[in-house]
Amino acid sequence: MTEQALSDLKILEYGHLASAAYCAKLMADLGAEVIKVEHPGTGDDARRNGPFYQDAPHPERSGMFLYYNMNKMGITLNLEVSTGRRIFRDLIKQTDIFIHNMPPLRMEELGLDYETFREINPGLIMTSITPYGLTGPHRDYKANDLVAFHSGGLGYGTPTFVEDPETQPPLKAGGNQAYMAAAVAAAGATMGAVLARSLTGEGQHVDLSQQEALAYLVRPTIGAYFYGNPPRGRTIADRLALGGLFECEDGYCSISAGNDRFWNGLMEAMGNPEWSTEDICQTQESRAQHVDVLRILIQDWIKGWKKHELYDLLQKHHVPAFPVNRTNDVVNTPQLRDRGFFVQVDHPETGSILYPGAPHKFSDPHWQIKRPAPRLGEHNQEVYCGRLGFSNEELALLRETGVI
Amino acid sequence: MTEQALSDLKILEYGHLASAAYCAKLMADLGAEVIKVEHPGTGDDARRNGPFYQDAPHPERSGMFLYYNMNKMGITLNLEVSTGRRIFRDLIKQTDIFIHNMPPLRMEELGLDYETFREINPGLIMTSITPYGLTGPHRDYKANDLVAFHSGGLGYGTPTFVEDPETQPPLKAGGNQAYMAAAVAAAGATMGAVLARSLTGEGQHVDLSQQEALAYLVRPTIGAYFYGNPPRGRTIADRLALGGLFECEDGYCSISAGNDRFWNGLMEAMGNPEWSTEDICQTQESRAQHVDVLRILIQDWIKGWKKHELYDLLQKHHVPAFPVNRTNDVVNTPQLRDRGFFVQVDHPETGSILYPGAPHKFSDPHWQIKRPAPRLGEHNQEVYCGRLGFSNEELALLRETGVI
Repeated sequence: MTEQALSDLKILEYGHLASAAYCAKLMADLGAEVIKVEHPGTGDDARRNGPFYQDAPHPERSGMFLYYNMNKMGITLNLEVSTGRRIFRDLIKQTDIFIHNMPPLRMEELGLDYETFREINPGLIMTSITPYGLTGPHRDYKANDLVAFHSGGLGYGTPTFVEDPETQPPLKAGGNQAYMAAAVAAAGATMGAVLARSLTGEGQHVDLSQQEALAYLVRPTIGAYFYGNPPRGRTIADRLALGGLFECEDGYCSISAGNDRFWNGLMEAMGNPEWSTEDICQTQESRAQHVDVLRILIQDWIKGWKKHELYDLLQKHHVPAFPVNRTNDVVNTPQLRDRGFFVQVDHPETGSILYPGAPHKFSDPHWQIKRPAPRLGEHNQEVYCGRLGFSNEELALLRETGVI
Repeated sequence: MTEQALSDLKILEYGHLASAAYCAKLMADLGAEVIKVEHPGTGDDARRNGPFYQDAPHPERSGMFLYYNMNKMGITLNLEVSTGRRIFRDLIKQTDIFIHNMPPLRMEELGLDYETFREINPGLIMTSITPYGLTGPHRDYKANDLVAFHSGGLGYGTPTFVEDPETQPPLKAGGNQAYMAAAVAAAGATMGAVLARSLTGEGQHVDLSQQEALAYLVRPTIGAYFYGNPPRGRTIADRLALGGLFECEDGYCSISAGNDRFWNGLMEAMGNPEWSTEDICQTQESRAQHVDVLRILIQDWIKGWKKHELYDLLQKHHVPAFPVNRTNDVVNTPQLRDRGFFVQVDHPETGSILYPGAPHKFSDPHWQIKRPAPRLGEHNQEVYCGRLGFSNEELALLRETGVI
């Protein structure tokens, strides 16, 4: 196969950390050409975020940078000086999609805004990923991942099950969930804009709010609120009968055995213990009423099991279950290995290392990793001389004057 | 504007609960025509999931169903009988995209598989959203949202900050995060396949694994693992200096004041207290070493503030901060209200109610809610008579025989 799904799209990216970079990567993985623009000398802040290869901080060995930026070309350009901005506008002319996550106010001050770009390239799609969107009273407020997680209301609902929702503090989920949710939503919206352009011939500005990318994932609580039910956040632990974590010999296993079918499967797996014939075990309602004692009985049986063996057993009895995977469990699960989820990527600074792949398989293999993340300014010559027609002497001058 | 981004796409959806339904909704919102197929009599399991309008269970008043299925037409069809499957294949012939989340084994047993459909419609894109993907040793294992959350490894990292990662149990984030992450990823992948078809003219099968849709969001821990660093899950609370939750008069406020710039902003906001001139406050490293005492001093000041007033103050000083929003806070935030994030949708069973909108604004308004979720079988006549050419008498016969 020569062509990938997005092979005819040229993307320019200007971003720090995760949201814009991951959005552009998702499209690069499907074949789009992505040129990442970084500030000369320092580059993307992700270069200073770990985990670092062999735990040693180094701007070319940051896992965060290397993962989010594979499959891209990289150039340096100083947008704080007018020569840099002029060159940037020349790049915009050759671009289908411009993706960024810079503060909106600063972009406007620098004249790097959609209205300006639209005049020089009416077909341009510009995707702005910002904490709160480009309009509204909070548009210039700051937010990192933790802040966004709570601003979207997801934090208050975490953890799902607690003993006392009023007094136990809310928590944040692991990883950069707000950035990632925004990136995935932005990639979808940007492809929507590409499909729109194929109908109308015109580009447009896609304004993606991180807060909203989280808020649109928080369904049940918001639904209940608008339906006139009292505000809900977390749920008291034992209301959902017999779901949740149980402790195994070597970690935790999560089980859902609320309804009759799953309950019967669990009892079968346990060899139909004598107490399972008691009246209180016969309906979902009465099991919910006596959940404390049933949990103890089940926990007592489970504690002798290894979590992966229990998992296989319960699956055979059609009970939804899964060991709580730690990182090493995820990496070594036979399912992900069999599907080739993790892919080898070679990089001059780290050698060949495994990275997560795509969450999907296309029957035609459009998803592909073709190159590692760029070193800072790696493709300056290719882009500035090859695309914009600068000579080597001009390139040297731009470098000396700090423009690139 | 008459055309929306996805106006020329026809989608058929066959799914229960959230993942397939939300994936199809995301595309319906951008203009695709979606026909949702439900089993006669019972319909989508989401109809039996709350929250219910006025807290009264009713299959046409489930918030979960009404939200995930707005903008769609709905028909009933019994795929357990051969007449039903024959009619389904006729529908497939008129379809660009078929989205489902049914068990792969069952779909194959019924002959509702990609190979069969490809023969009658080579341009078809079929998107299968399953817990573990369509290949591999776990392909027929079951999983609900809770299970998927842990299978992707996200659970072990939650909450992010704990006192003792070895003994405190891992938790699950609120809402249906695994389903939603899979749905958003699937919508993006499906649009990728549409763009691929515009290059190659051919459809294909998109195989989306929920486990992978979670695993590809868990970056730092997996990166560290492959970089040879010890497996990481959660982080010990005080290692990240001065970030996290503080208690206000009326709830919690999350603050990030680790680095010098944010720390100085916080001190300014506090009126530069005398103790802030102490040596231990002068570098990020020494503040991290004395984080316990600094947290007490800051907490002491914060406890007299209302969370939203503190938020406005800290933003003025450029300190990333946000009140921990409860559902009512999210719904009433001036930012979301100003952006019109929540939209009114009228439905015969509930009247007009607010629902979450899109996380993005297109400068051309391609995103639109045009109709509420369908009542069970609401569009049977329109689809079966209008599209497939059945007469009213034939429709009656199909209804009597339980086919629709």
